[in-house]
Amino acid sequence: MRGFEQAEFEARTQRAQKLMETAGLSALLLTTETDVRHFTGFLTRFWESPTRPWFLIVPAQGNPVAVIPSIGAALMGQTWIDDIRTWSAPDLQDDGVSLLAETLNELTPVDGQIGLPDGHETHARIPLADLERVRNTIGPRQVSGDQGILRQLRMVKSLAEIAKIETACGIAGRAFSRVPEIARAGVALDEVFRKFQILCLEEGADWVPYLAGGAEQGGYTDVISPARPTPLADGDVLMLDTGLVWDGYFSDYDRNWSIGSARPETRSAHARLIEASDAAFELARPGATAADLFHAMNTVLTRDAEGTDAGRLGHGLGMSLTEWPSLIPTDHTVLEPGMVLTLEPGIAVGDKILVHEENIVITEGAPRYVSPRIGPEVIEL
Amino acid sequence: MRGFEQAEFEARTQRAQKLMETAGLSALLLTTETDVRHFTGFLTRFWESPTRPWFLIVPAQGNPVAVIPSIGAALMGQTWIDDIRTWSAPDLQDDGVSLLAETLNELTPVDGQIGLPDGHETHARIPLADLERVRNTIGPRQVSGDQGILRQLRMVKSLAEIAKIETACGIAGRAFSRVPEIARAGVALDEVFRKFQILCLEEGADWVPYLAGGAEQGGYTDVISPARPTPLADGDVLMLDTGLVWDGYFSDYDRNWSIGSARPETRSAHARLIEASDAAFELARPGATAADLFHAMNTVLTRDAEGTDAGRLGHGLGMSLTEWPSLIPTDHTVLEPGMVLTLEPGIAVGDKILVHEENIVITEGAPRYVSPRIGPEVIEL
Repeated sequence: MRGFEQAEFEARTQRAQKLMETAGLSALLLTTETDVRHFTGFLTRFWESPTRPWFLIVPAQGNPVAVIPSIGAALMGQTWIDDIRTWSAPDLQDDGVSLLAETLNELTPVDGQIGLPDGHETHARIPLADLERVRNTIGPRQVSGDQGILRQLRMVKSLAEIAKIETACGIAGRAFSRVPEIARAGVALDEVFRKFQILCLEEGADWVPYLAGGAEQGGYTDVISPARPTPLADGDVLMLDTGLVWDGYFSDYDRNWSIGSARPETRSAHARLIEASDAAFELARPGATAADLFHAMNTVLTRDAEGTDAGRLGHGLGMSLTEWPSLIPTDHTVLEPGMVLTLEPGIAVGDKILVHEENIVITEGAPRYVSPRIGPEVIEL
Repeated sequence: MRGFEQAEFEARTQRAQKLMETAGLSALLLTTETDVRHFTGFLTRFWESPTRPWFLIVPAQGNPVAVIPSIGAALMGQTWIDDIRTWSAPDLQDDGVSLLAETLNELTPVDGQIGLPDGHETHARIPLADLERVRNTIGPRQVSGDQGILRQLRMVKSLAEIAKIETACGIAGRAFSRVPEIARAGVALDEVFRKFQILCLEEGADWVPYLAGGAEQGGYTDVISPARPTPLADGDVLMLDTGLVWDGYFSDYDRNWSIGSARPETRSAHARLIEASDAAFELARPGATAADLFHAMNTVLTRDAEGTDAGRLGHGLGMSLTEWPSLIPTDHTVLEPGMVLTLEPGIAVGDKILVHEENIVITEGAPRYVSPRIGPEVIEL
């Protein structure tokens, strides 16, 4: 099923309002694609255009109110939101500032605190000068942080959200299984990237916002470079890591292949990566922490080898390619049923690295793979 | 050619430093993908991950300094930037804040003004709480706006940039010309969207971040909705508007097709759109303004018809799908050689709309189409 039942958006709003009450917030002010979509279901690729700001206000009581450019009115009108206020954007003199300020003044008490997400992994999608103008127009109301409310709400997914992520992961799995059709010695890496995106679309992706990877002798140097037109060669390890989207939700996992016979050190490093993600998977139950999963993997990875510069060994996954929590030693987020995580161990092999990634969902009991878990063997192409 | 000569980045830096001197700025602080790339050439899809902040400082003298997560060090090391300072991100206690503040303190005088883009079409890609921490750590230095310097620099493209946009537009043109292979009565619109993205990749796109469009009887309701699985039907007007990327630069134009014979009002509306973009094209020379182009189109469009809710009739184009200027009555930006613009007239047809879009480059004399200009006839599928 595309989209969500209206009851789901109502429940999200009520959950937010309960947290706002505890936090002493009179409203949430949301400016980013994912935060606005969390409460509305407003799904469009138009956010790719940085020109226009979009705002959603979640008041202490009642339904969210959209303050958006008129170009979005028809689409927002198809969501459950019925209070939609628009201006003709872009307006170089007043790009929604007055309309936003008026709406905040109407919806919040004069001494209200308005929560704008300001913590880790957030940004405010509004020109800073305009944010300052809003602050000056709504005083003595204050714009403060959201005290992590959006993080808390978005980090635990509903069954309907998990089903979408699982659909995206299934599409990626079918695309990965067809890589032997497109990759072999002699094919340029940028051609593999292009054709892999085609496979993702053929298998049902709505779009493919993210594809990274590498292919060098015995591993790769990093995992964020764009593909170059270098032909795959015998002895290369090819890695493809895709974030494809189905109905607004991401998959995010990778696969490795050896071009020709895999070297013994490639085989053992790959097996070690699987051992590491298995170790985290075993622990990944309610009550364990993000740090626990990091340590489970890191212990396996550093037994007699070195890690990578990635900075973490996995993360949350949902409407964004990467979300809270981070699998790092200092993230003590306690796992809850409904969290969707990537397990992403990396290991150094000589001067190269290998990275493996799977996607799992935390349940009441044992976790579940939403990516089709693979075995320790490296597939040879 | 992929990438740019180092001389181009040096020239961009010197141009920025001249403007900074006039503006009284001791440094620019840049946080977004496009602004960082403008000075570095740092090209990666990894920005899709919202987790980590990335910073570039352009000092009053000398080369830009990167303050970035360690995961990006290898790739940044391949650019011309040699002062690269990294931290292991994500760090929940201090995600680059201290390193950024130290670097700003080192590179700027104690009474320095640091310019962070804060105007129209900008946002700061850093958590607001972290920006506040930076401000508190670098005092008495102040973070102010950039006084439009990035806008001014990025709005006028180099020949090398224009060549990349033209390559992207050529790819889109070849994909558009193959639409008869994928679209006909009975094919679902979401399948057309998926297959059109495949055509873009087959024709050479690196990736396809943006595809919008619609298909309804005699026009469409808006141009930002995702595609639904509704089969194309006789009498529909199908529109596809793609922003595909080649080497980090966008195309952004659309095409319309009639499913079966085009109605007379569709034909005449489409011809009117071409007449409108032609009228703007005729005027589009150095010295004319963005507003002039708006009025040239609007006069044609409103002769005996109504416009749309789009808010503008075209815009700049480059590393972003949409950039300054806006073709609206109040944007008096004077056109200069090197600006790349979309001409995007829209018109109401009954309760539907039709939108046409072409991409042009401003030269010393007559402008040049970088999208393959089409004629007034609607192609029937």
